[in-house]
Amino acid sequence: LDAKALGEAWDRQKRMTKPAGSLGMLEIISAQLCGLSRKCPPPIPEPACVAVFAGDHGVHAQGVTPWPQEVTAQMVANFLAGGAVVNAFANQLGAEVCVVDVGVAAELPPAIDSGRTTGLLPRKVRPGTGDMTQGPAMTREEAMRAIEVGIETARDLVAAGNKCLVTGDMGIANTTASAALVCVFTGEDPANVTGRGTGIDDETHARKVAVIRQALALHRPDPSDPIGVLAAVGGLEHAAIAGFLLGAASLRTPVILDGLIAGSAALVAKAIAPEVQAACIAGHRSAEPGHKAALAKLGLRPLIDLDLRLGEGTGALLALPLVQSAARAMHEVATFDSAGVTEKP
Amino acid sequence: LDAKALGEAWDRQKRMTKPAGSLGMLEIISAQLCGLSRKCPPPIPEPACVAVFAGDHGVHAQGVTPWPQEVTAQMVANFLAGGAVVNAFANQLGAEVCVVDVGVAAELPPAIDSGRTTGLLPRKVRPGTGDMTQGPAMTREEAMRAIEVGIETARDLVAAGNKCLVTGDMGIANTTASAALVCVFTGEDPANVTGRGTGIDDETHARKVAVIRQALALHRPDPSDPIGVLAAVGGLEHAAIAGFLLGAASLRTPVILDGLIAGSAALVAKAIAPEVQAACIAGHRSAEPGHKAALAKLGLRPLIDLDLRLGEGTGALLALPLVQSAARAMHEVATFDSAGVTEKP
Repeated sequence: LDAKALGEAWDRQKRMTKPAGSLGMLEIISAQLCGLSRKCPPPIPEPACVAVFAGDHGVHAQGVTPWPQEVTAQMVANFLAGGAVVNAFANQLGAEVCVVDVGVAAELPPAIDSGRTTGLLPRKVRPGTGDMTQGPAMTREEAMRAIEVGIETARDLVAAGNKCLVTGDMGIANTTASAALVCVFTGEDPANVTGRGTGIDDETHARKVAVIRQALALHRPDPSDPIGVLAAVGGLEHAAIAGFLLGAASLRTPVILDGLIAGSAALVAKAIAPEVQAACIAGHRSAEPGHKAALAKLGLRPLIDLDLRLGEGTGALLALPLVQSAARAMHEVATFDSAGVTEKP
Repeated sequence: LDAKALGEAWDRQKRMTKPAGSLGMLEIISAQLCGLSRKCPPPIPEPACVAVFAGDHGVHAQGVTPWPQEVTAQMVANFLAGGAVVNAFANQLGAEVCVVDVGVAAELPPAIDSGRTTGLLPRKVRPGTGDMTQGPAMTREEAMRAIEVGIETARDLVAAGNKCLVTGDMGIANTTASAALVCVFTGEDPANVTGRGTGIDDETHARKVAVIRQALALHRPDPSDPIGVLAAVGGLEHAAIAGFLLGAASLRTPVILDGLIAGSAALVAKAIAPEVQAACIAGHRSAEPGHKAALAKLGLRPLIDLDLRLGEGTGALLALPLVQSAARAMHEVATFDSAGVTEKP
């Protein structure tokens, strides 16, 4: 973050016609946007695009969720047809939805057959990861390629004129990989950070915790080797989102994080390059316990906290108008002098 | 709330392509909108208008704030010129701002002189309240007239096509009247619900608590007589906001509450007619301690919680896109059947 622009931001916010500090957390966001862009006032983060990175997970074979794996591909088709919650929220907020197939296990015939492929970026690194309890989820090279998919997606979306990026994700069983990543980077025990995902019963939850414990025991991932961690227990969408954050940060473009999957990917990205955090805004806190641990480790305070646990980018999208409003206030609000309002003595 | 539409809402939300319950608090808001409108899906609450009720307070003479009283009128001029935070947020979200002078102490020459009076509703009941430590803040008749101003404002804004109303307020010293109202309706001690308002030092805070204690001892307001409470320790904008909520509820139009001033006015409105609550959505929780007590008494969970303490309607406006997104999801999200997505077994 640029120190000069940060200073200008705080100074300007004190002169705006409002009690000092009265916009609370939004003043911190405004200052971050100034520091990131090196401008005060900062560019209004509009238009925005949510990139939904989709991938499948070999660990699905361990029975960590009751949802069948083909739902990942079916939901990708639903995104492309405009029928998912992320589409409805994006429509309401004037944001675009872009779907990136970085590792869906199935081919995607329905979407392609019906010609509804606008908005799909086919970037499949491999058709789903391997089962982390049996071996590595992917090779180091595949992890690198998935990261590059994310970097390139960020670059292309910014080149297309987007001033704000939003993370999204889809992948049946991806909360299992996320919880494993959170364990590695926070040192937490799987029992503390493994949640109910889309809604699982006690028996499945116990199995999910055991599966994560087993995978961590098998790989003993080293948090100082983030590519190795991704290869061992990560997901292709986690790798791509980590790249997406790195790409956004290198372009000094703010990126709003969705829930647990983005939070765990941000831990990876921060282990690769700590500077990435300057571009990251935590959109919301999900109901997943691992997300709380991830946000605490990242030192990020979420803007929305409404028990959402859907993914897709829905929680991050809800935060988008808050970030835009914070930036717009820096542009449009009069100062005490200019408005002829008496300042507090 | 209409029981049939409520049932339809919960049923529909279970069939939408998302894990059951995964939209958390937004599913509760969606159901409320259905029950309020008697329709499933509910009307999307758009366009919206924020009504900023402005009034002055005789208790200002007791030194409860360092801000001079003329700031109320100066900020009204700032609203009309488009230079306040509420204007910036409303612009970002596509909402209108309407300013209602229900009791500003000063005449408003600068705004009128410069012809910038578009958006001002001149409804002055009296030029500021009386000092509650010396006598009643207003007469019962004045309280009734201010309530009617609010009811009529709601009626006019809904007649103009607004599908969602948003409360706003402006009035130097109005957190003092708000804290007094919260004490009366929650039974809390002034020391627990009196905050720092726009930012006051320890000495002023101690005086503010003592002033509220003195006024409550003088009037001994009876919470079962809400008009009497308003007349004793209320503000003209509090009375008008109470009427605004009553008007919105009678028209089955959702109304988003801003912070402490709206929360304390909602306590008054609920004491007049408990049904009003069906139309109320808590936009945010402000940093003021009295607001927490008011929300607890109302049984409302706020959508945003970011340490804002500005008023004007800013916190409520930030919640507007969340409410709109919740409603839009009910319209646009496909069901498992229609999207060909496999449901969880």
